[in-house]
Amino acid sequence: MDQKKRGELEFWFDFGSNYSYLSVMRIRELARSAEVDVRWRPFLLGPIFKSFGWETSPFVLQKEKGAYMWQDMLRQCRKYGIAWQRPSQFPRHSLLPLRVALYGAEQPWIAQFCERVMLQNFSADQDINAESSVAYILDRLDLDAAAIIAAAQSEDNKLRLRQRTEQAKALGIFGAPTFFVDGEMFWGNDRLDDAIALARGATTSSTLIAEKHD
Amino acid sequence: MDQKKRGELEFWFDFGSNYSYLSVMRIRELARSAEVDVRWRPFLLGPIFKSFGWETSPFVLQKEKGAYMWQDMLRQCRKYGIAWQRPSQFPRHSLLPLRVALYGAEQPWIAQFCERVMLQNFSADQDINAESSVAYILDRLDLDAAAIIAAAQSEDNKLRLRQRTEQAKALGIFGAPTFFVDGEMFWGNDRLDDAIALARGATTSSTLIAEKHD
Repeated sequence: MDQKKRGELEFWFDFGSNYSYLSVMRIRELARSAEVDVRWRPFLLGPIFKSFGWETSPFVLQKEKGAYMWQDMLRQCRKYGIAWQRPSQFPRHSLLPLRVALYGAEQPWIAQFCERVMLQNFSADQDINAESSVAYILDRLDLDAAAIIAAAQSEDNKLRLRQRTEQAKALGIFGAPTFFVDGEMFWGNDRLDDAIALARGATTSSTLIAEKHD
Repeated sequence: MDQKKRGELEFWFDFGSNYSYLSVMRIRELARSAEVDVRWRPFLLGPIFKSFGWETSPFVLQKEKGAYMWQDMLRQCRKYGIAWQRPSQFPRHSLLPLRVALYGAEQPWIAQFCERVMLQNFSADQDINAESSVAYILDRLDLDAAAIIAAAQSEDNKLRLRQRTEQAKALGIFGAPTFFVDGEMFWGNDRLDDAIALARGATTSSTLIAEKHD
């Protein structure tokens, strides 16, 4: 009997968020090599910003910070070898792909789906919220796009996304991406490695405890 | 004749800024081993925040972000092996030590002075703005505290600090620490390594050009 418990990392993100893009593109390989399981937590960042009195992204509201962010994204994408094209619309609406990601969060296709939505936004510079955009991505993954989109648009799933977003607020999430490992919060793609390291460490200590009880 | 040009990095910081603390404590060794020269650029972050309509630090104005930041500081200090005690006042007033740092920016004692002011704020949890606080630090560096403080408080030096802060605004600086290498901006302690790497690269290419002209 395998008592070894793998480390876990919660990954809270929005497809409209540029720094979430970096983490979506990096997390699969990082988690795989650290033997950490990712719990995908799509949520709507907009209502969080609205709760601070902001009508849109701080990168739009603060022009100096926004100007810097585009420079930073270019450099970060080069550093990590991630495709990049500055989107002509920012932040893009992301409600439909978020609903699909929430619906499919436990499915084997979740990582690839999220990567493709992000690439559509930040590399192909295309809309991600139209049904045709999402269907195209699901089709390319050999999935039943019509059935998945219908399920994602069900009242039940819509409600779950609203609840998820309220949960984000209750957890003190103020931006994206945000990671949780054993209840500890890490904000920003710059903390993904630290979060993964903690999750991997958690695996080790769980293993040791499990071994003691053998 | 040595035609080799060392890489340079401008380091914009405020002693009240917690993430500036991390960079002040890290930059001397990083710059030394990369053979990069640091240009110390003390400035007042408060007027920058005021220009955005903020009366104080965003870590005070946004309580979720503030709560996270203290957690993050604890972890970052552990990671880098930097002393840490959460200051009982935040952000601390830093006008006098900034004036001294501006006055001494080209002096051999600048790095140590800045480190000691930062440790007083973020490790000893003590006032840094009183004349006695600054004099104590200068004394410990075997410097003429009275003469330096008098020079730092001269009308000329006060004006220079105001101009420096206006220059920060004109450069698009929106937070601290901020680094510039060859006119490229890097924001935050998380980008210090990238900025150093660019400055070191600049050295290499200057060297190559110099060698071609030999």
